[in-house]
Amino acid sequence: MPQNTIVRFVKRPQGFVDENSFAIESAPMPQPADGQILLRNFYHSLDPYMRPRMTEMDSYIAPFEVGQVMEGGGLGVVVESRHPDYTPGDVVRGMLQWAEYQAATPGAMMRTLEPGRVPWRHYLGVLGSASLTAYVGLKLIGEPKAGETLYVSAASGAVGSIAAQIGKIRGCRVVGSAGTDDKVAWLKGELGLDAAFNYRTVTSMDAAIAQHCPEGIDIDFENVGGETLQAVLDHIRPHGRIVMCGAISEYNEPGPGLERIFRIVSHKVRMQGFIVSEHFDQMHAFVAEIAEWLRDGRIKYRETVVEGIENMPRALVGLFRGENFGKLIAKVGDEPN
Amino acid sequence: MPQNTIVRFVKRPQGFVDENSFAIESAPMPQPADGQILLRNFYHSLDPYMRPRMTEMDSYIAPFEVGQVMEGGGLGVVVESRHPDYTPGDVVRGMLQWAEYQAATPGAMMRTLEPGRVPWRHYLGVLGSASLTAYVGLKLIGEPKAGETLYVSAASGAVGSIAAQIGKIRGCRVVGSAGTDDKVAWLKGELGLDAAFNYRTVTSMDAAIAQHCPEGIDIDFENVGGETLQAVLDHIRPHGRIVMCGAISEYNEPGPGLERIFRIVSHKVRMQGFIVSEHFDQMHAFVAEIAEWLRDGRIKYRETVVEGIENMPRALVGLFRGENFGKLIAKVGDEPN
Repeated sequence: MPQNTIVRFVKRPQGFVDENSFAIESAPMPQPADGQILLRNFYHSLDPYMRPRMTEMDSYIAPFEVGQVMEGGGLGVVVESRHPDYTPGDVVRGMLQWAEYQAATPGAMMRTLEPGRVPWRHYLGVLGSASLTAYVGLKLIGEPKAGETLYVSAASGAVGSIAAQIGKIRGCRVVGSAGTDDKVAWLKGELGLDAAFNYRTVTSMDAAIAQHCPEGIDIDFENVGGETLQAVLDHIRPHGRIVMCGAISEYNEPGPGLERIFRIVSHKVRMQGFIVSEHFDQMHAFVAEIAEWLRDGRIKYRETVVEGIENMPRALVGLFRGENFGKLIAKVGDEPN
Repeated sequence: MPQNTIVRFVKRPQGFVDENSFAIESAPMPQPADGQILLRNFYHSLDPYMRPRMTEMDSYIAPFEVGQVMEGGGLGVVVESRHPDYTPGDVVRGMLQWAEYQAATPGAMMRTLEPGRVPWRHYLGVLGSASLTAYVGLKLIGEPKAGETLYVSAASGAVGSIAAQIGKIRGCRVVGSAGTDDKVAWLKGELGLDAAFNYRTVTSMDAAIAQHCPEGIDIDFENVGGETLQAVLDHIRPHGRIVMCGAISEYNEPGPGLERIFRIVSHKVRMQGFIVSEHFDQMHAFVAEIAEWLRDGRIKYRETVVEGIENMPRALVGLFRGENFGKLIAKVGDEPN
């Protein structure tokens, strides 16, 4: 009988999350009850939003409970089914446990995937929630118009890289920031951004934005918060839109407060947050558009794949230090044939 | 020949504005050139937005230049006309000088008012820009729905009192804050707000909002900024709207930075600024609605009238200390017959 390894959330982080918040354990092989399926999980998505879930906060999603098995977006293959709609060999995408094997009750958020169309991991990556987040945020809040300046923070990340490229497709002047020179070179070279800079080596965010967005920012796709968002607000143009997608700089430790709030009034700014799970109705339009852009080579995609369930905690911690390049995925088992 | 008194802006304030930023001067009687009219001004509007205009900032409106005659919304009567569309006796509303007499070139923002419909000063008050600001902000950004909780800061002010009452008309549960017990009593008694509190005497804004908005805030009509806005963000409900109308607590001195910005993401908040002058297309709908509400007694209105042009600087300074009650207007001359 195969071994089962799981990752449990064991301690709420105080400040910067480290591996001590997680425990890697051997667990018995789960037995599916009636109406359940037994899944062998093989890919997992690692995402910034997991950090806020580790804190007891009033948020859009229940916090992780201390002691629970970690969970996140993942792909699994059905190895045993006690549910009429599932057959062994089916591949599903859903909110899955950080476990090699799990018993799962299929629900509204679980979807069976059609094999052979794209590499499986793309369903967590370029065709997954992170890309949909970029698509929806830019479309519904950013409302890009040709000629406008779009600034994207964390622009080499899973969400940022797609937001930046959709911005280019929509005719914007796109400026991005990232945390290594390699990432910046990729943004300017491979993705064709109009300007990009390394936020770790600039004199200040304010000076960098002033230099690279000399006419100001029409649309900010905000992933970072803190000093980045302050610089955006200080350089926002009239009727600017700030797509509030994330604030990764503030997930582990409180950021500096946002000052000069009156600019939101004086510049008639719209600053709006959203959560992708409320916009799954956009999935069809999204897949149709992005599939065409991928075929045309207008969307390029980069990922970091970590191998082994036991390396997931370290990889997630590294995400908050910018150690990944593009979408961060864990491979926790072999792909099904 | 009558004397002419003017108020000049002579010094940019550092921190809290005081009367030293203004000089009261005697000036020669202006002579209208061809195409101009000579106005005798009789009412002036005093408004919070004038403080940001005293600072050299990149904003929606040009800052006051040191040395210029102060200006603002006002009413004047034509005493001499060298413009074909104006006749002595016409009363106009426009951006007028803080001057008893001025020569003016009629432009797009100047309108001739029909006599006898309402008291003249209502054109700067309940039928003026401050009320339109409340109407437009609530309609276009707040989008109130019956049963929602609307919180209005500076709720006894010119804008806040109208926003709060429109909120009641729209079926919201309306909570307001103000800076004296008298104002709070008026909000609860005369205006019929569901709850109101004195922000100067509560333990903390956070505790006050928790007490008076126990289910959180759906719509915030924000006039104050600073700790008030922080408490709002900390108690905002999912899909909350923050109508960014002003930030009076931050006009004279920088406020504390706004923390926990991630709540904008997690609660899918829309925080949006606007400037009423971009929405004068709403004037017709506004006047039609508010005129009916005034007739029905559903909108009540309070004003503080200061007499004499020489008292305008002191009255404006007092506005930032909450010394007015309702709309602050200066009477600088007799009403025309």
